[in-house]
Amino acid sequence: MDISTYFPIWNKLNINEQHTLSASVRELHHNRGDLIHTGGDCMGLILVTSGQLRAYTVSEDGREITLYRLFERDICLFSASCMMNSIQFDIALCAEKDTDAVIIPSDIYRSIMEKSAPLANYTNEVMASRFSDVMWLIDQIMWKSFDRRLADFLLNEANIEDSNTLKITHEEIGNHLGNPREVVTRMLKYFVGEGAVKLSRGTVEIIDEDILAKIAGR
Amino acid sequence: MDISTYFPIWNKLNINEQHTLSASVRELHHNRGDLIHTGGDCMGLILVTSGQLRAYTVSEDGREITLYRLFERDICLFSASCMMNSIQFDIALCAEKDTDAVIIPSDIYRSIMEKSAPLANYTNEVMASRFSDVMWLIDQIMWKSFDRRLADFLLNEANIEDSNTLKITHEEIGNHLGNPREVVTRMLKYFVGEGAVKLSRGTVEIIDEDILAKIAGR
Repeated sequence: MDISTYFPIWNKLNINEQHTLSASVRELHHNRGDLIHTGGDCMGLILVTSGQLRAYTVSEDGREITLYRLFERDICLFSASCMMNSIQFDIALCAEKDTDAVIIPSDIYRSIMEKSAPLANYTNEVMASRFSDVMWLIDQIMWKSFDRRLADFLLNEANIEDSNTLKITHEEIGNHLGNPREVVTRMLKYFVGEGAVKLSRGTVEIIDEDILAKIAGR
Repeated sequence: MDISTYFPIWNKLNINEQHTLSASVRELHHNRGDLIHTGGDCMGLILVTSGQLRAYTVSEDGREITLYRLFERDICLFSASCMMNSIQFDIALCAEKDTDAVIIPSDIYRSIMEKSAPLANYTNEVMASRFSDVMWLIDQIMWKSFDRRLADFLLNEANIEDSNTLKITHEEIGNHLGNPREVVTRMLKYFVGEGAVKLSRGTVEIIDEDILAKIAGR
């Protein structure tokens, strides 16, 4: 598995570092729906080579909210929380599509990063990027009404899936947005009344993007 | 101003780096209540030498929620958002106590960090620590009821101030927790009824920590 193209700073690593990183990786395949990481352990950095992962957090009583998505070429640091002393939280990861990935062991990555300014700075940029995702999320959950958040979510999903027919249950939507299923169902019915979507079993179909965009405040 | 003791990795910087950093700093004094940074500009890294800062985020219509506090020896990266391309958000900073700090210009810090693995790794740890604060906040606002959050906040403030008599208005509490003043007032009156606190103008006095701790679920 050639991982050189996945690191924009690859050419700034020396030959030894490149070799050590390359030799350490383990390939991973997961099917859509697989739970990959539940927090607690330190499984290593995950580099997505194809597919799509969802990073989320879970409450004590099992409720969920999506933190961010990982697409092809994205790297997940927080599945390797032992890599830094100051990472004092856990995330969970599941596969939203059939996904190929590689795992880089935390201790190998850490030992190279400790000496390599390019790798440490690259890691900084990756973390800042996730930090920006999470700050966006705080903005959403604190200040945006649920109708806006749901409309925005549906438009984003249609964009990711490249389809206006979304195969997703009300419960799954609730797990993304951190709301109970009933709240999702109630709001979707309101969207139906507005002529924005059509519902059928396990499917939400967007029939008027403009109305939805207006609700989302775009 | 000797900043060497503020960086645990100071001895891993070379003489030139130490000199460049030291020579770049500008001292800063703010009185309690001063607004220090409102986002938008890139004023540099702030290193608190004494006092206390509050980092918070503001909604489009001016509502606030506290993200984290900065105490003596803490460093704020996000007042230097131009330091990394991937920092795509703004925070605001105000002084909660009379505060002495130094500012390190973003371009100087960045130029050293690009070449110094120790400084880049230290920056990583600082960011991971703030990331942990913000993940804790998401957990609080998503899954904890307001009575628990408010009780927890009052106990934390008493701990920070080392006093059970807190000079704070209901509006200020609302700005910390991201809730309207009326919601805070209503819940504080409930706490009075439970025998946990006593209210007077601009003051909340904790009269029974155990009751408050029980409400907070501690």
